Amino acid sequence: MNFASDNTTGAHPRIVAAVAAAAGGRAMPYGNDEITRRVERRFAELFEHDCSVFLVGTGTAANSLALAALVPPWGAVYCHPEGHINTDECGAPEFYMAGAKLVAVPGANGKLAARDIDQVVSFAGAGSVHHVQPAAVSLTQATEAGTIYRADDLGAIGEVCRRHKLGLHVDGARFANAVASANVAPADLTWRAGVDVISFGATKNGAIAAEAIVVFDKEKAETIGFRRKRAGQLWSKHRFLAAQLDAYLADDLWLTSARHANAMARRLADGLARVPGASFRDPVEANEIFVRLPEKALQGLEHDGFVFYRWPGADARLIRLVTAYDTAAADVEGFVASALRHVG
Amino acid sequence: MNFASDNTTGAHPRIVAAVAAAAGGRAMPYGNDEITRRVERRFAELFEHDCSVFLVGTGTAANSLALAALVPPWGAVYCHPEGHINTDECGAPEFYMAGAKLVAVPGANGKLAARDIDQVVSFAGAGSVHHVQPAAVSLTQATEAGTIYRADDLGAIGEVCRRHKLGLHVDGARFANAVASANVAPADLTWRAGVDVISFGATKNGAIAAEAIVVFDKEKAETIGFRRKRAGQLWSKHRFLAAQLDAYLADDLWLTSARHANAMARRLADGLARVPGASFRDPVEANEIFVRLPEKALQGLEHDGFVFYRWPGADARLIRLVTAYDTAAADVEGFVASALRHVG
Amino acid sequence: MNFASDNTTGAHPRIVAAVAAAAGGRAMPYGNDEITRRVERRFAELFEHDCSVFLVGTGTAANSLALAALVPPWGAVYCHPEGHINTDECGAPEFYMAGAKLVAVPGANGKLAARDIDQVVSFAGAGSVHHVQPAAVSLTQATEAGTIYRADDLGAIGEVCRRHKLGLHVDGARFANAVASANVAPADLTWRAGVDVISFGATKNGAIAAEAIVVFDKEKAETIGFRRKRAGQLWSKHRFLAAQLDAYLADDLWLTSARHANAMARRLADGLARVPGASFRDPVEANEIFVRLPEKALQGLEHDGFVFYRWPGADARLIRLVTAYDTAAADVEGFVASALRHVG
Amino acid sequence: MNFASDNTTGAHPRIVAAVAAAAGGRAMPYGNDEITRRVERRFAELFEHDCSVFLVGTGTAANSLALAALVPPWGAVYCHPEGHINTDECGAPEFYMAGAKLVAVPGANGKLAARDIDQVVSFAGAGSVHHVQPAAVSLTQATEAGTIYRADDLGAIGEVCRRHKLGLHVDGARFANAVASANVAPADLTWRAGVDVISFGATKNGAIAAEAIVVFDKEKAETIGFRRKRAGQLWSKHRFLAAQLDAYLADDLWLTSARHANAMARRLADGLARVPGASFRDPVEANEIFVRLPEKALQGLEHDGFVFYRWPGADARLIRLVTAYDTAAADVEGFVASALRHVG
Repeated sequence: MNFASDNTTGAHPRIVAAVAAAAGGRAMPYGNDEITRRVERRFAELFEHDCSVFLVGTGTAANSLALAALVPPWGAVYCHPEGHINTDECGAPEFYMAGAKLVAVPGANGKLAARDIDQVVSFAGAGSVHHVQPAAVSLTQATEAGTIYRADDLGAIGEVCRRHKLGLHVDGARFANAVASANVAPADLTWRAGVDVISFGATKNGAIAAEAIVVFDKEKAETIGFRRKRAGQLWSKHRFLAAQLDAYLADDLWLTSARHANAMARRLADGLARVPGASFRDPVEANEIFVRLPEKALQGLEHDGFVFYRWPGADARLIRLVTAYDTAAADVEGFVASALRHVG
Repeated sequence: MNFASDNTTGAHPRIVAAVAAAAGGRAMPYGNDEITRRVERRFAELFEHDCSVFLVGTGTAANSLALAALVPPWGAVYCHPEGHINTDECGAPEFYMAGAKLVAVPGANGKLAARDIDQVVSFAGAGSVHHVQPAAVSLTQATEAGTIYRADDLGAIGEVCRRHKLGLHVDGARFANAVASANVAPADLTWRAGVDVISFGATKNGAIAAEAIVVFDKEKAETIGFRRKRAGQLWSKHRFLAAQLDAYLADDLWLTSARHANAMARRLADGLARVPGASFRDPVEANEIFVRLPEKALQGLEHDGFVFYRWPGADARLIRLVTAYDTAAADVEGFVASALRHVG
Repeated sequence: MNFASDNTTGAHPRIVAAVAAAAGGRAMPYGNDEITRRVERRFAELFEHDCSVFLVGTGTAANSLALAALVPPWGAVYCHPEGHINTDECGAPEFYMAGAKLVAVPGANGKLAARDIDQVVSFAGAGSVHHVQPAAVSLTQATEAGTIYRADDLGAIGEVCRRHKLGLHVDGARFANAVASANVAPADLTWRAGVDVISFGATKNGAIAAEAIVVFDKEKAETIGFRRKRAGQLWSKHRFLAAQLDAYLADDLWLTSARHANAMARRLADGLARVPGASFRDPVEANEIFVRLPEKALQGLEHDGFVFYRWPGADARLIRLVTAYDTAAADVEGFVASALRHVG
Repeated sequence: MNFASDNTTGAHPRIVAAVAAAAGGRAMPYGNDEITRRVERRFAELFEHDCSVFLVGTGTAANSLALAALVPPWGAVYCHPEGHINTDECGAPEFYMAGAKLVAVPGANGKLAARDIDQVVSFAGAGSVHHVQPAAVSLTQATEAGTIYRADDLGAIGEVCRRHKLGLHVDGARFANAVASANVAPADLTWRAGVDVISFGATKNGAIAAEAIVVFDKEKAETIGFRRKRAGQLWSKHRFLAAQLDAYLADDLWLTSARHANAMARRLADGLARVPGASFRDPVEANEIFVRLPEKALQGLEHDGFVFYRWPGADARLIRLVTAYDTAAADVEGFVASALRHVG
């Protein structure tokens, strides 16, 4: 079974069905269709807030467009060193932002701390033409370490952003897992805490290829339509993006799917805790696990056909395990049993 | 019935079925899957040539990535004034090419002429740092005027490109319609005539969202993988792009669909030729018709519920009609009958 | 004698002296010096208007920074096909504007006509994400054809700009020659006619390397400081730019120099009008002459050591002659005499 | 007296004289003049190597053009966190490189260490489209900490670059000071150690505004001419850049000036070492001093009219002192005496 990433999943049957249902007949292109309108209404309800919504096919595009709307080319975006935008997008944000700078602010367990941002910004030379100008904070929710920001974490960061006039962006590729874990309203993890824009992910959690840029301050959304077209990210048959999100948001499919993934991660972590020599790098709060296992266990698991990433870096025993909406409990149990057997 | 554009269509049932079939189970992401491999083989067979293939979700992305791979930021791309890249992509090619310049070369019926390109390039100041440097030609096949380049048209342009060391790119959003119309091998309209890269369209002809950048000179493809990722155009669940093209190329679906669209356009043009006062701006060679009709006819058609574009510009009677893989003969007949009735 | 271009001149002795005088002692860098403050005051007086002033070393930089401040990356800038920004800057404006588009609007004698701009903008698709958005007009004063825009020409263009909410930029590499020719106040050829920003040239008219971006609407100047630094155009020893412009503006040196150049051009044109077979492509209104001469005359002049450009294009007899602040009347007479002798 | 920066100096009389001498008569523009040819020969002699030379007006431009020539937009440039390109150029390198990424590699005393670069590059994901690609190392010589790289430091870095196929760039804004300090041939600190390109500074050491990009591998210089023009960095009256460097290189003016500055820094450091409570952050190896002094001393010095930077950061007692070609020994002694007096 594959624990390498939630992007190795296929697509949820209800999302596939929605796409198939949208395939008949004619509709006006580029978002001028009824399904798109419905998705916009769904987002307003979900977030309990008026918002501008832009659909795109990849998370990289969602993040990059969102940041480009917040930041001038001479701006600085504060993010975690391990942030996906900083390490895994081949410089896409810099491309979209015409060369603005990502400034890494280290923090424990994949999380930015409000006071660290505050300090870095204080010495950044705001107002001086010699330095890139503080412009935005971008954080990942759930983080790349499998942890989450609580509402009060976000509130503190939001307060720093307000004080320094920084935009606040959330890379929500796994936002559903964060909401499922925090068990609060989506609004509590976004605009109520000062978030301006979220990249609301669907692909990893059951969609084919669909992400939504949701902007809570409509003024900040003004350029995104042009940027999206100019980036080749505006689908002509836009209803096929909309249909995916329509099904994803209907009847809480997004949340149900994320709860399942999180529960499987919890179960897997609890099982691995029983493996002699296992140690966890970070708390398991969503659907990703970073754990060190004895080399014997790793080789045994690989031999048994389990797929996972040996995490790059100096720590050779560290692996990442990711669960998803379609992870079966039996596979989780099988993984734990294999690890125990090989180490025993 | 909708004759506004072929992008108002839904998706062909065989393509939808292929996507649904790909939705189960797990597969490695980012193109490391079996369906993608199969699509690559299909393209090599189709074009009778080894080639590099990059799949993306929009034609704008395909064109922009292809050009960026051929042209330095200080390069010039020669194209038709009415070229989609020049008029309808909000500057996407310039964004991807880091500011390279599109230089418009007028020509009859939406087509570039080899000798016009030759002349413009001759006075372009090649080698001088003061001027953007001749770098590529980009033409649209079928053209934005509904005409096509024959193999010998292309050969002459290819020869100019070779002489001036220009890359040759084809925007093939409607390449299927051109092949169906010219009734020659795809190779005859591409590499045999000197084409380096084609944006091979599928979306307008029945796909959900899928285009292929096909590069015949593998050396010219070296940067595209990085550019695609950096542009947020690399789908994580890449098999869903591949599945669309797999079905599109299987059993000549692409060609059959285009032949149908072309036949409907022919039939529609023949019918409209009987409308008193009708006159055609360009020869009808693919699936687009540019025709002037009496205002009475236009208003009558609109009143009867037919959807089409009144073409922007000084000529108020000029409209564009586009047929597609799903255009019904009855709708074509209905359109003609309505026009005749209202003008009569 | 060299009639090839006014950029083959050296530098005016009063400008050289000012630079030498600024070379002693210490001064704070990056424009925080007294000479810079004085130059800013001089510009406010000259233009009878509060303005923001940014000094740079080249005209290409001045034009590109000015346009970048007026235009978003998805914007369109309307200019003459022969505009220096369109033909002679290797795409610098596109580089600075992050890929915005120059849209050429043809016009007689190197001049844009208000009604042509109006018409092109009307069909440009303002508000639609598919098209680059009308953003600015850029015109050259004096033009690349050696003609000038009168105050009423500019007023008409300014009115079109206001109506369509376009910025209005003047490439004033030879603005001094235009003012000398029109014999009106600088204000009449700029903000009173609706001009937002001018690239105020000094290099061609006697400076070493110095141009000023003068912005009449301070809000439009907000980003230029960052853009200038980011482009590597902010001199650390800024006083050396300022010293050049200080001397240039003092005691009307700029205007006196331009009047001399214009007078020499007038004298040269009058002389050449007596050459059998001579014909002028454009009216001679500043310090550039476009004239066709018999091939015998051209070869004779070259043989006699006169330097000038045979203008590229189909018309082999067309040459450009440029006079400058240091052109001697004797050289002008010599040129005419040589032409007459060789053709006689 | 001003110890804030060497860019608060004016210009050396011999450089001013050279500019004045170049101001008469006519010369072909854009580098097609005799002085430029002579400067090129001087650089070939100085470095004992064939090289391509590009003159520009600012160090920011020199660095940014050099890096853009070495690095694709999806490339990574390894530099010190305190590197001028990383902290003081408002993102200019990112602008010129179309968004490539500066990756900071910490190191003691402002210096990169070969083995640290090696390790970072090893985990950078070379060849994978998900990550920016290792492309170049850029180091500053003398460093921003006032230290220098010895020939063997550079050789070790050069070896890492060769192994990983990285370009090697030197920001030589104070290269003269480094050569004066190391007392070796310029070749030993450049191409013999594997350096591909150096930004050879003159402005801080006595020029008005002049820097040279010197490229030792001519193939790597191919794009710079176009990039320079496109960036608005090609002076039309190029001889005025050339004249500055001509005088700067003649009779070892560059080296004599740097030796003086270094000697003054040495003398100042030796004097300050006698101030109770003084401590040096870094070894003093060129013309910059980072020293902590008692607050009493700092306030007293300021009261006495000495100008210097209190260095931004947590350490409130840390200041930077910079000497230059024109620093008088009396001012150095005065500074030390003032500090001693106020602390005593």
